[in-house]
Amino acid sequence: MQPGRRYVLTLSCPDQVGIVAAVSGFFAELGGWIVEADNHADQVGERFFLRHEVTAESLPFGRDELMRRFTPLAERFGMTWQITDTEHRKRVVLMVSRQEHCLYDILGRWQSGELAVDIPCVISNHTDLRDIVTWHGIPFQLVEVERDAKDAAFRRMHEIVKDAGADAVVLARYMQILPQWLCEAYPNRIINIHHSFLPSFVGARPYHQAYDRGVKLIGATCHYVTADLDAGPIIDQDVIRIDHSDTVEDYVRYGKDIEKTVLARGLRYHLEDRVLVHGRRTVVFR
Amino acid sequence: MQPGRRYVLTLSCPDQVGIVAAVSGFFAELGGWIVEADNHADQVGERFFLRHEVTAESLPFGRDELMRRFTPLAERFGMTWQITDTEHRKRVVLMVSRQEHCLYDILGRWQSGELAVDIPCVISNHTDLRDIVTWHGIPFQLVEVERDAKDAAFRRMHEIVKDAGADAVVLARYMQILPQWLCEAYPNRIINIHHSFLPSFVGARPYHQAYDRGVKLIGATCHYVTADLDAGPIIDQDVIRIDHSDTVEDYVRYGKDIEKTVLARGLRYHLEDRVLVHGRRTVVFR
Amino acid sequence: MQPGRRYVLTLSCPDQVGIVAAVSGFFAELGGWIVEADNHADQVGERFFLRHEVTAESLPFGRDELMRRFTPLAERFGMTWQITDTEHRKRVVLMVSRQEHCLYDILGRWQSGELAVDIPCVISNHTDLRDIVTWHGIPFQLVEVERDAKDAAFRRMHEIVKDAGADAVVLARYMQILPQWLCEAYPNRIINIHHSFLPSFVGARPYHQAYDRGVKLIGATCHYVTADLDAGPIIDQDVIRIDHSDTVEDYVRYGKDIEKTVLARGLRYHLEDRVLVHGRRTVVFR
Amino acid sequence: MQPGRRYVLTLSCPDQVGIVAAVSGFFAELGGWIVEADNHADQVGERFFLRHEVTAESLPFGRDELMRRFTPLAERFGMTWQITDTEHRKRVVLMVSRQEHCLYDILGRWQSGELAVDIPCVISNHTDLRDIVTWHGIPFQLVEVERDAKDAAFRRMHEIVKDAGADAVVLARYMQILPQWLCEAYPNRIINIHHSFLPSFVGARPYHQAYDRGVKLIGATCHYVTADLDAGPIIDQDVIRIDHSDTVEDYVRYGKDIEKTVLARGLRYHLEDRVLVHGRRTVVFR
Repeated sequence: MQPGRRYVLTLSCPDQVGIVAAVSGFFAELGGWIVEADNHADQVGERFFLRHEVTAESLPFGRDELMRRFTPLAERFGMTWQITDTEHRKRVVLMVSRQEHCLYDILGRWQSGELAVDIPCVISNHTDLRDIVTWHGIPFQLVEVERDAKDAAFRRMHEIVKDAGADAVVLARYMQILPQWLCEAYPNRIINIHHSFLPSFVGARPYHQAYDRGVKLIGATCHYVTADLDAGPIIDQDVIRIDHSDTVEDYVRYGKDIEKTVLARGLRYHLEDRVLVHGRRTVVFR
Repeated sequence: MQPGRRYVLTLSCPDQVGIVAAVSGFFAELGGWIVEADNHADQVGERFFLRHEVTAESLPFGRDELMRRFTPLAERFGMTWQITDTEHRKRVVLMVSRQEHCLYDILGRWQSGELAVDIPCVISNHTDLRDIVTWHGIPFQLVEVERDAKDAAFRRMHEIVKDAGADAVVLARYMQILPQWLCEAYPNRIINIHHSFLPSFVGARPYHQAYDRGVKLIGATCHYVTADLDAGPIIDQDVIRIDHSDTVEDYVRYGKDIEKTVLARGLRYHLEDRVLVHGRRTVVFR
Repeated sequence: MQPGRRYVLTLSCPDQVGIVAAVSGFFAELGGWIVEADNHADQVGERFFLRHEVTAESLPFGRDELMRRFTPLAERFGMTWQITDTEHRKRVVLMVSRQEHCLYDILGRWQSGELAVDIPCVISNHTDLRDIVTWHGIPFQLVEVERDAKDAAFRRMHEIVKDAGADAVVLARYMQILPQWLCEAYPNRIINIHHSFLPSFVGARPYHQAYDRGVKLIGATCHYVTADLDAGPIIDQDVIRIDHSDTVEDYVRYGKDIEKTVLARGLRYHLEDRVLVHGRRTVVFR
Repeated sequence: MQPGRRYVLTLSCPDQVGIVAAVSGFFAELGGWIVEADNHADQVGERFFLRHEVTAESLPFGRDELMRRFTPLAERFGMTWQITDTEHRKRVVLMVSRQEHCLYDILGRWQSGELAVDIPCVISNHTDLRDIVTWHGIPFQLVEVERDAKDAAFRRMHEIVKDAGADAVVLARYMQILPQWLCEAYPNRIINIHHSFLPSFVGARPYHQAYDRGVKLIGATCHYVTADLDAGPIIDQDVIRIDHSDTVEDYVRYGKDIEKTVLARGLRYHLEDRVLVHGRRTVVFR
């Protein structure tokens, strides 16, 4: 990401001639300096996707006025759109269970300033990671998930997330399945890291499944959570080579390294408004 | 592989103390010079796997005598074993349909001497690739597979393969499903290249399936053919990154590059007796 | 690449506000359907790069008229630019020595139609690969390079390339160093594959250098040839993992697989006008 | 690594017939259960390398007696050898400057038990990372390196490392060059992570060098520190793909992810006695 305040426009609409001209003409007329411009025309779905980063200082007014002026153009093309301001620090709620590798990785990036977000709280169903969280000055919310009282627990989480004003919820190896209504309350905002190369090995114990099948690469998948378990739109994936001498325990250990890296990449794409969802597919403007 | 004639011993047996000592002691007593030695003890299955390459010139006799002398030791440990002679040029039958990328790749390696095998013939259900095959001086066997006479066709192929004395049959993008009896006639000797990262996207049109699911990496899998379609033991796999701007046609094009590379690697491992099958898993001593 | 005739505009110019608006406005006014649009603003060099693909059928006239009309806009922004027509089949001259892996790979792609170019001839300083070339119906030009008569040989090659009307010259493991004047006669049009991960191991016997240094990955680099040996702009690179058990001979064998794949990718980017050179760097719009 | 106490034998010696037989016979006679066995015969240097893991419970005595009994055999073959006990927790001194990504990564692995070592102290020439270190209960040693008093500083470090009884010293992005005498005091025990794909871009600001050269992959190298800067034996390397749209700042950010992963892998290989040095090359038994 470049330094300096930016407005980030993302949009999608039915494809037709003249969209880029209209959007870039709109900014050119205002003297807007476009520093990153990506677009994609999906040939199958005949839908158009665009992302522009414009320097704030090149425009004579702020985000609200920019949105007001852009609205007629957006309506003309039937756009689904948003404009964000890079000075608005996004708010990310983390959810963890007992495993710390993803949490440590995110905290390290946050501490160094690489991950420039606010973390209003970390939610967990266990106390194991409480101390490292609070040492970083972040509130820790214990929400135990009892077998008989799951619904109450998830309603409590929903409240916490709502109060936190979260732009994103990250399941950093959170080991409970969210109920459908909770998934649907935050469409394309809950990010999960799955420890397999989806769609291989959905469900539980993917490394054991991978071992039994005798694959030669194992992977991890960062995706948006939907009500359909492990089937949400994929943001990023990666794999690592293993061989016959590796045990399931080795897979788990190697896997952690891919999991945290892929989760960090996916989260970054999300926070920089680089991910546009298109059915079960994503457009990721890197 | 190093130059010079070698004997290659591969074996598997129930794991116990003293196998390596017995095998290496056997060779040491004979003055046998071991130039490559690999072994693996599977902790789950409690089975032991070993591969030794011994220089022929370090032994005072040939392969037959070596096998005769090794037999008592093999019986003592309950080994499944074989000894091959690198001067015995292996025989590989290729089966193709219309796509040439894997065939060209194999012929190029063969022509240059990198792939040091005999190719007694290429079998195809189409005539498209006849000319490039015969130009290389290799007999081309057309065996059309009519919907109503599949069985006769596969019996004809079986005869050709048998007459050819094939050590391996390579399905180089051969687009027919072999019947169960034919798969079982050549256990761990028929090698297929599947154009997906198995077990994702088994069956037909895997690139279309991958596109619909929105994965970020596509792959190819080289495996032994079993009666259970696309479920045979995996020899090697690889993947390549794609993104939202790639169409299914792009997947097909990128995929060809991985397919031919992974097939060539898997075939090489097989021909050098580096692959030991263990249920649905393989031990590959690279 | 999508099917259907296209015009491909590529340009670079000093960066300023309004370039994208001007270019996309130009096409929108003509009803031009932009199916691929990429651009890049180099923050360091303050230079702007753009590539647009427009369907031919969406425009009321041909390439010549399109160029005539675009000229004033190009002059206004000080653009270096070109418009190509995908129906103009490009002409590629191959130069080889004795190693066949890159040649086989290119011929296979050409034969299958994946590589949609004309190959007016293959030039070589050896006769080894004559037969496979002529079997494909391509003229083979033997130009021996005698130690005492190098200049005459290179002048002969220059003539052949000129007569062939080559859009690109591919050094497919051609083992002679081209003289400075010849490199300069075809700026950004001679493509070489170097068998190392440049800038590591420039010069001769890179795999031996890699072995001596004990690296854990070896690579290949596809680059434009300049008078400065092995220092031309890099189009693409890749690597493969090796370990202590691999010999230099193994490196050579693995290396071939990366060489041919990276060369094919680089050549494709070049032929589709996806590569814009910027000093020693390249912008590659994939 | 499997659970359970092990003795790990590593050795190298001039290659000859019968080494494996002698070593495995030695263990077989004692009833020693070999759970991992690797060896490598270097064809160029004619040197033999071996690593065996034997379960402690399969032997009737401890490490000292094992070493006493192994000595005659070792002398017969002229071996350089050692036997370590996995119950002896190794001691690792970390050295850091200001950047936290490698430190956080190592602390996370240590906290979770994945990295089963003692960390007697962290040495730094800055105070930035003091708090996170001491929160983990690890002593923090500030040793400032003044331009005029470098020698005194390095002597102080030497004392700290000596007192700590370090099996390994890890330069986790420590930004000072160690003097020759200090490098030589700990041969093959000081591990550094270099932020380039060595031998490309030795020295300062490798990411800037990579940007200027226009490479398409950037990398990181984990190596033993020798008096010859950035030229020590390489333990592991990896790369990541970048493109024209990435700035040097992006390289730095991506680079951190490879740096910490490659350092963690290299450190693990070292701690598990998997790395044998052979001139400028390493044998790494994974």
